[in-house]
Amino acid sequence: MPKLSFIFVQIASMAGNTFGTLLTLTTFGESHGTALGGIIEGFPAGITLDFEAIQIEMQRRKPGQSAIVTQRKEADEVQFLSGIFEGKTTGTPIGFMIPNTNQKSADYSHLENSFRPSHADYVYEKKYGIRDYRGGGRSSARETACRVVAGALAKQMLPNVKINAFVSSVGDIFLEKPYQALDFSLTESNPVRCPDPETAAQMEALIKEIRKEGDTIGGTVTCVIQNVPVGWGEPVFDKLHAQLGKAMLSINAVKGFEYGSGFCGARMKGSTHNDRYANDGTTLTNLSGGIQGGISNGMDIYFRVAFKPVATLIQEQEVLTADGRIEVQQGKGRHDPCVVPRAVPIVEAMAALVLADFSLIHNAYQGK
Amino acid sequence: MPKLSFIFVQIASMAGNTFGTLLTLTTFGESHGTALGGIIEGFPAGITLDFEAIQIEMQRRKPGQSAIVTQRKEADEVQFLSGIFEGKTTGTPIGFMIPNTNQKSADYSHLENSFRPSHADYVYEKKYGIRDYRGGGRSSARETACRVVAGALAKQMLPNVKINAFVSSVGDIFLEKPYQALDFSLTESNPVRCPDPETAAQMEALIKEIRKEGDTIGGTVTCVIQNVPVGWGEPVFDKLHAQLGKAMLSINAVKGFEYGSGFCGARMKGSTHNDRYANDGTTLTNLSGGIQGGISNGMDIYFRVAFKPVATLIQEQEVLTADGRIEVQQGKGRHDPCVVPRAVPIVEAMAALVLADFSLIHNAYQGK
Amino acid sequence: MPKLSFIFVQIASMAGNTFGTLLTLTTFGESHGTALGGIIEGFPAGITLDFEAIQIEMQRRKPGQSAIVTQRKEADEVQFLSGIFEGKTTGTPIGFMIPNTNQKSADYSHLENSFRPSHADYVYEKKYGIRDYRGGGRSSARETACRVVAGALAKQMLPNVKINAFVSSVGDIFLEKPYQALDFSLTESNPVRCPDPETAAQMEALIKEIRKEGDTIGGTVTCVIQNVPVGWGEPVFDKLHAQLGKAMLSINAVKGFEYGSGFCGARMKGSTHNDRYANDGTTLTNLSGGIQGGISNGMDIYFRVAFKPVATLIQEQEVLTADGRIEVQQGKGRHDPCVVPRAVPIVEAMAALVLADFSLIHNAYQGK
Amino acid sequence: MPKLSFIFVQIASMAGNTFGTLLTLTTFGESHGTALGGIIEGFPAGITLDFEAIQIEMQRRKPGQSAIVTQRKEADEVQFLSGIFEGKTTGTPIGFMIPNTNQKSADYSHLENSFRPSHADYVYEKKYGIRDYRGGGRSSARETACRVVAGALAKQMLPNVKINAFVSSVGDIFLEKPYQALDFSLTESNPVRCPDPETAAQMEALIKEIRKEGDTIGGTVTCVIQNVPVGWGEPVFDKLHAQLGKAMLSINAVKGFEYGSGFCGARMKGSTHNDRYANDGTTLTNLSGGIQGGISNGMDIYFRVAFKPVATLIQEQEVLTADGRIEVQQGKGRHDPCVVPRAVPIVEAMAALVLADFSLIHNAYQGK
Repeated sequence: MPKLSFIFVQIASMAGNTFGTLLTLTTFGESHGTALGGIIEGFPAGITLDFEAIQIEMQRRKPGQSAIVTQRKEADEVQFLSGIFEGKTTGTPIGFMIPNTNQKSADYSHLENSFRPSHADYVYEKKYGIRDYRGGGRSSARETACRVVAGALAKQMLPNVKINAFVSSVGDIFLEKPYQALDFSLTESNPVRCPDPETAAQMEALIKEIRKEGDTIGGTVTCVIQNVPVGWGEPVFDKLHAQLGKAMLSINAVKGFEYGSGFCGARMKGSTHNDRYANDGTTLTNLSGGIQGGISNGMDIYFRVAFKPVATLIQEQEVLTADGRIEVQQGKGRHDPCVVPRAVPIVEAMAALVLADFSLIHNAYQGK
Repeated sequence: MPKLSFIFVQIASMAGNTFGTLLTLTTFGESHGTALGGIIEGFPAGITLDFEAIQIEMQRRKPGQSAIVTQRKEADEVQFLSGIFEGKTTGTPIGFMIPNTNQKSADYSHLENSFRPSHADYVYEKKYGIRDYRGGGRSSARETACRVVAGALAKQMLPNVKINAFVSSVGDIFLEKPYQALDFSLTESNPVRCPDPETAAQMEALIKEIRKEGDTIGGTVTCVIQNVPVGWGEPVFDKLHAQLGKAMLSINAVKGFEYGSGFCGARMKGSTHNDRYANDGTTLTNLSGGIQGGISNGMDIYFRVAFKPVATLIQEQEVLTADGRIEVQQGKGRHDPCVVPRAVPIVEAMAALVLADFSLIHNAYQGK
Repeated sequence: MPKLSFIFVQIASMAGNTFGTLLTLTTFGESHGTALGGIIEGFPAGITLDFEAIQIEMQRRKPGQSAIVTQRKEADEVQFLSGIFEGKTTGTPIGFMIPNTNQKSADYSHLENSFRPSHADYVYEKKYGIRDYRGGGRSSARETACRVVAGALAKQMLPNVKINAFVSSVGDIFLEKPYQALDFSLTESNPVRCPDPETAAQMEALIKEIRKEGDTIGGTVTCVIQNVPVGWGEPVFDKLHAQLGKAMLSINAVKGFEYGSGFCGARMKGSTHNDRYANDGTTLTNLSGGIQGGISNGMDIYFRVAFKPVATLIQEQEVLTADGRIEVQQGKGRHDPCVVPRAVPIVEAMAALVLADFSLIHNAYQGK
Repeated sequence: MPKLSFIFVQIASMAGNTFGTLLTLTTFGESHGTALGGIIEGFPAGITLDFEAIQIEMQRRKPGQSAIVTQRKEADEVQFLSGIFEGKTTGTPIGFMIPNTNQKSADYSHLENSFRPSHADYVYEKKYGIRDYRGGGRSSARETACRVVAGALAKQMLPNVKINAFVSSVGDIFLEKPYQALDFSLTESNPVRCPDPETAAQMEALIKEIRKEGDTIGGTVTCVIQNVPVGWGEPVFDKLHAQLGKAMLSINAVKGFEYGSGFCGARMKGSTHNDRYANDGTTLTNLSGGIQGGISNGMDIYFRVAFKPVATLIQEQEVLTADGRIEVQQGKGRHDPCVVPRAVPIVEAMAALVLADFSLIHNAYQGK
């Protein structure tokens, strides 16, 4: 099997850098290239942008914000290149760029001829026959910075919709309270981004312990979306939750997605699971998670996303070399001991993109 | 002309009836309309089709196969209308049709003005302003018959790839063995489609009990895909697992998707989770689930799909009426007490479509 | 697994059977297969369809309507399979089928191993390695029947927009009058579909003469679209005229497309060509053809489409055989001596699809 | 009609900034914004780029190259931001940027509240409710610089294919020789880009005369594509010539497209028009223009594109003001008296994009 690719002339290319139907985001860029960036197409004209709100989202995703995330320093300042005139969107494509100001490529020379376990090094090499090995190149989570830019814009298209993501577990520490009992304004009050201060403290302690070991730990992010009107989402294949699921699964390190009752629902009886109606079309319970048949029903949408532990360790690990040997390599560089705190704004950004896109498709058919 | 826009009054339309990039399936049809069907585009020319294999897949999905599934009678015979000449595919679109032979519309008149709990009745009415209420119309799982046709064709494009789905839980009864310990040839030996006969018997007993209560129960389907070469899948947004996830989440009643270590992986440390390499590029463990960075790595791909309990009960339930009243309605008709046995071929079909599509995209860049 | 790729041997498949962005038409079917048909997706819900109007369009395209078109007999009755409930559209995909009732395959056995000049026989054989040679298979203009169905529906989405196509030349006989001097209600008054009776009579005489020779003749169709509001069309690549051009060039036998001043405009000076404004935003002249920068400007849109002479002759012609010989073959069967009269409803249909699609995209961004 | 838009809340957005299926180009940027640029997706990995060749194409399109084109000074240096590593493509998206170094916005303040005849000013204002009026903003032909970058890359994917465009008419001066009699190496020998020196001289004289009048003149570009193998292009809707046509019609100022016999073919008889075969599958004549049924047949592909005269004049012209008055405005600034010389590389670029894209789709189905 490993020799399969050698029967080919080694070329390939990457599809799949565009997300969305009417509102689309196309991204480009490698971790240590000149710049990352993207094009947002289909964004409505005439919206006065709140650039500070965009930069705040960038700050939330940025490395080095706290003691429990990677200490890599990046300016992460987005430069808008088009589509905005005198502070307002013009309806034309919004091109943007995030220069890579901290390209210490030398850090990564040891990766040129070796494949780290559970990283994308090996498959990129086999698929493309060439890779920018510096910091993971295109497979680096640095690409998500572009998603946060686009998501921050998408949020501004949907001023009434409230999107709140937060860390709901780190390792075996779970936030046990239902989301209705949480105060989302506390999410940003601690570096873990868990809105329950007590649980947050436990999570933070665990992450610090893991970091000391040079190890990493997984976790989950829960996202709650409120004030979505009835009718967004497109059955059959583009169900609202299917598109949300794809959006989340496309984020680096994600291993699972569930919405509403999720995997727990698979253990329940219909008589318990069905959501009874109130007279106004709302439901008394919401195991459905705000979506029926792929279409929003006006109730809160909520889902949970599983993130694996980051594969980069500050420990000795075996790597595979390009000439087929197993070598022990000492992990180095800066990394996140736990990715979920920084994933929170990314989850929100992707959710915003999905919702904004469906709002436009829905709008195409609405009368005036 | 200035009044032109008034022709749009409370109307909508459904996008999202097409799946895939190069190999695409577009479906049409309502549960009790004239026919369902679809168009498969991008299927390679020159393949001698095994029509019996297609019909076998249809039989697996068909209602009325056993005592534990719905007794609705449907011929479910697919008629191919184009794209095939003297038994071989011609490369042109394959149109097909499944006539609805059992349209007892009278059965459903009680649904015209009422919305059943946890069904799509209400959201369709609100979004489209009109709906074919007979048997759920477009939102019925009957649509998945078209997916099974397309999936059966896609499997024939990939003769080396082995796709095996099976029921891995019903309610609280879980198949505890790892998939490596299972004999997939036993999956079809029992009506539950669980390849472990003992567990299957327990599941069957539970489903029969649930059926007696007029209730329903959820479950999970696990799918294992073997012999996929390194290199299929398209980062960034169209990662192999993201597209598999979307495919599965687009199946009726699905609430969750996880692959590889899944939600369990979110509780693990990196030092445990990372898959060590062997010299040949395979890995000693496979918590990654056969996919790295959205690209297949040559190891087995496996994932799990959560299905909620079917919303139709043979019990009294409250419904919402079109004029805003809550009424008690006696559930009737034929339904599945547990959907997962019939979901097995649908999961396989969607997996086959995803893989076949990515195999073509990958192939577009391979030299000769 | 390393041999996987060997399953792909000289095969191909056809992309490009779908047209449109939000309102899409996907077609299937070969000239002498079981049926042709298609799926119309994105059609608004709640529209009461005028089925008679659809059938009238089908009649206009149908062979055998008059002495100057092919005498092939086809029922050309469209069967709608989904998406319509109690006479109204439901917003779900509209599947339809046109059975091939007149499949005299024997007529075509002489084509199995020979390639007719200026037909698609040879390229299909080379590209796909297999072809349904009966009546041209997929390359037959019979496919356009599906476009006429979809176009007839699209027209019903745009009740205010007036689309009038007509024959503007046959061979060297040109309709010299500007379209403003024509009475479009006369288009259907003669078999040529030229709204000027005198010119129509000359064209008809020419076609009859050509038919007697067993020969064929080319011609042009002009189309005028009125009452399109300002703002339809999407620069940069999807300019309204670019999409109209693609739509027309995708019709069998089309060799050219021009709109507004067209090729004549290429000979003019800017000072003559520029359209001066009136106070209300209309223009005093309309050399622009109702489109500026790819967007409709509220003036009449008009364009002209060139059709080559049909390649099928009732004469002896040289054909290329599969084993590389040149043979003389006597043309037989039924064919059109001049395709433009039957092309008129097809041009209108494609124009209606383009406009309806752009109207939806435009509407997606209009507030309420 | 002009007041139509006022019934809407003024928002809109522009779709259609992406071209292609597997090889795609998405562009952004306004004439006088910070930068233009784009993302090329689906470009094969492992190709050593010839950057000089790219810059040469940029030079050909650039303003100020000769006395007969606009004297606007632009550096037009493309900066590649991603997708290239150590001089080779990596298969990941190629982001690029062309900074606008010459943003004399003050030049354009007179356009803020007025709409020039036969420009896109008015329709942009009506559609989007806002526009970057400087130099035409998004509607400026400056956007085509991005196409030239992408086209120059696409050419490097197709080293065997020869694409030669040239000016075939300016006003009433036509290049009468068939393309077979031309020496394409002479195209760049004169500022008009007409490979026949004598005709070129006449054209140049005419353009200079027109320029003195402050007027502009239209023209045509012919393009000849050689060495395309049999089989590229996708019927039904994505016929090779339909996609070429759309590509050309999407270029600013284009009014018409014809291929092969084109509009002349509409005057011919079938017995003259049909291309007789030679034994090897080539044809003795080539009125078909190298395409049958939408698929390349291995013969030369050739087509002709009509460009209207540039709308910007250095004369007094009437403009419409935002408050509905007609005013006389003196044209100023730099402009092209005739656009076709600079259009030559743009036509080639778009042709290269179309062909490279179809080559990939075709390749997806080819065995090894």
